[in-house]
Amino acid sequence: MTRLAIDGMGGDYAPRMVVDGLSLFHAQDPSVEFLLYGDEVSLKRSLDPYSSLRKVVEVVPTTEVVTSDMSVSQVLRGMRGESSMHCALKAVAEKLADGVVSAGNTGAYMALSRMILRTLRGIDRPAIVGCMPTQRGLSVMLDLGGTLQCDACHLVDYALMGEIFAKKILGIEKPSVGLLNVGVEHSKGGDTLKEASGVLQSLPIHFVGFIEGNDIPKGTVDVIVTDGFTGNTVLKSGEGILNLVFQSMRQQLASDWRGRLGYWIARKSFEQLKSQFDPRKHNGAIWLGLNGVAVKSHGGADALGFSSAISNTVKMINVSITEVLEECFSQYHTWINGERGL
Amino acid sequence: MTRLAIDGMGGDYAPRMVVDGLSLFHAQDPSVEFLLYGDEVSLKRSLDPYSSLRKVVEVVPTTEVVTSDMSVSQVLRGMRGESSMHCALKAVAEKLADGVVSAGNTGAYMALSRMILRTLRGIDRPAIVGCMPTQRGLSVMLDLGGTLQCDACHLVDYALMGEIFAKKILGIEKPSVGLLNVGVEHSKGGDTLKEASGVLQSLPIHFVGFIEGNDIPKGTVDVIVTDGFTGNTVLKSGEGILNLVFQSMRQQLASDWRGRLGYWIARKSFEQLKSQFDPRKHNGAIWLGLNGVAVKSHGGADALGFSSAISNTVKMINVSITEVLEECFSQYHTWINGERGL
Repeated sequence: MTRLAIDGMGGDYAPRMVVDGLSLFHAQDPSVEFLLYGDEVSLKRSLDPYSSLRKVVEVVPTTEVVTSDMSVSQVLRGMRGESSMHCALKAVAEKLADGVVSAGNTGAYMALSRMILRTLRGIDRPAIVGCMPTQRGLSVMLDLGGTLQCDACHLVDYALMGEIFAKKILGIEKPSVGLLNVGVEHSKGGDTLKEASGVLQSLPIHFVGFIEGNDIPKGTVDVIVTDGFTGNTVLKSGEGILNLVFQSMRQQLASDWRGRLGYWIARKSFEQLKSQFDPRKHNGAIWLGLNGVAVKSHGGADALGFSSAISNTVKMINVSITEVLEECFSQYHTWINGERGL
Repeated sequence: MTRLAIDGMGGDYAPRMVVDGLSLFHAQDPSVEFLLYGDEVSLKRSLDPYSSLRKVVEVVPTTEVVTSDMSVSQVLRGMRGESSMHCALKAVAEKLADGVVSAGNTGAYMALSRMILRTLRGIDRPAIVGCMPTQRGLSVMLDLGGTLQCDACHLVDYALMGEIFAKKILGIEKPSVGLLNVGVEHSKGGDTLKEASGVLQSLPIHFVGFIEGNDIPKGTVDVIVTDGFTGNTVLKSGEGILNLVFQSMRQQLASDWRGRLGYWIARKSFEQLKSQFDPRKHNGAIWLGLNGVAVKSHGGADALGFSSAISNTVKMINVSITEVLEECFSQYHTWINGERGL
């Protein structure tokens, strides 16, 4: 039986959105239990309408809240460690829960995850991993903002983590891995990328070399490796572009009767198109490389988005991602250390 | 009268695409003259069908070609300086032409531009500038790949150049300027961004602070400032996402009769939508900060794309961008030097 720790106070619309998300997930999979951390009164009020959900939720009162405008150092040094975010993470560290979900302050959540769960042996920095729709299905991209400036070792670690993730979660037998650069030629990019590329070429993975920005939506590779600054920016600008296109489409189609009629006749196709790119379906960036499964929902997620983040967490737990990663990594590590020793 | 130097051999479909592009532009504006550099035989053959265009084109034979797979050092050190790219740039340096357009090897073109045209006084690195469609119209973004790793001074220079570009080319009276980061809070991002932000806050421009990836398509600011690696990746991934959405839309609408009928009825709206996001309309990244107007067309551009790049070049010449930039920059420079001296 799976039990998740939930940060009930994280996210722009928490705690209401969190509880609504739990309820949506509960309707699909009633077997999962929840430890829900946060302000007791408001959580219980939000749970009021959901009698079936209440049976699998235990509200655990906490006294502090990590807000979205707090800096990492404020959270690490200025708090007593009794926030819903702290306590939910501790539940995983203490094996009271199998995984944790929060929609709260990303920087704080990343820092607390590292502090409370710690990284797996041989991994310096955890990565934030996400899946994105491409012309060929889904691709895995990392890092999406965990480590803004990466050295070559970080990028190599990410490539290996992403490869395992694509195998285990997307079920791709031999995932192709590409390193994001400004061109595909060997001569392109800075020293860090060249060094990482050199190491990756020597490892027993399907590393295709450098890829460019347009290769991401093309689905040229199954795993896109980049630093956290670039990954975060590409992800957010991509979401923004999708919003822009769909908004413009609505405006163009609404602008005359032919557009409105055409839309009405073809509405099923439009609904499918919208659903294909619905960012809520891919909500839930996963912290990879920690002793425990931690998932970050988008801060502005709605209940559907939050329930997707829960689904992702359960999927990760079901494939024992932490254990698999630990084992595979210790094997790979012999290779990496060999390369690093050169 | 305006005269442009054209690299006839640059681009995936050169020289044919280049000459077709000249012809498209010539139909709109027959007053512009061209010095067309490259292989005499193939250029003249491509010009054969265009009797009117031939009157304003002078073919200048060159003996070398910069190919897309050459590294910058190969081009700088391994060539005699007699390629179409070299010669077209020299024409601007020697005032034989008012501006230059190439669809060739970006890295080589950037390096040769810096070497042959040199940067304006007070500017360390030229920037690659482009315009992109947003919810509020067009925004200017730089750098799109000229300098992959930027220090704070480069970012400040880019902000100032972008601000002047937005004023002169987009006609925005007091352009807003934002620095791309992983979050809008002061505490976000690395030291380079924080330092650049500090300097920009003290300058007499409308600097709004940090922006995130999703602010780009929203049009939150008129000028988006970032390093060349991030800018290049965001630009290319954005183009890829647009391709992906339009391809998926075609597939969804073609999948049943309701979709096909709806599309047929609303086809005018779809054409307008497609035209709104047609990357060819925004083709032509501009090198800003050099002694002369140099524009880079996308390597895979077609004739329409190349003619847009020519239009952009002529626009820049018409507003005397080089002179304006030089004057405004020398004024701003007092401020910057003051800040740098702190």
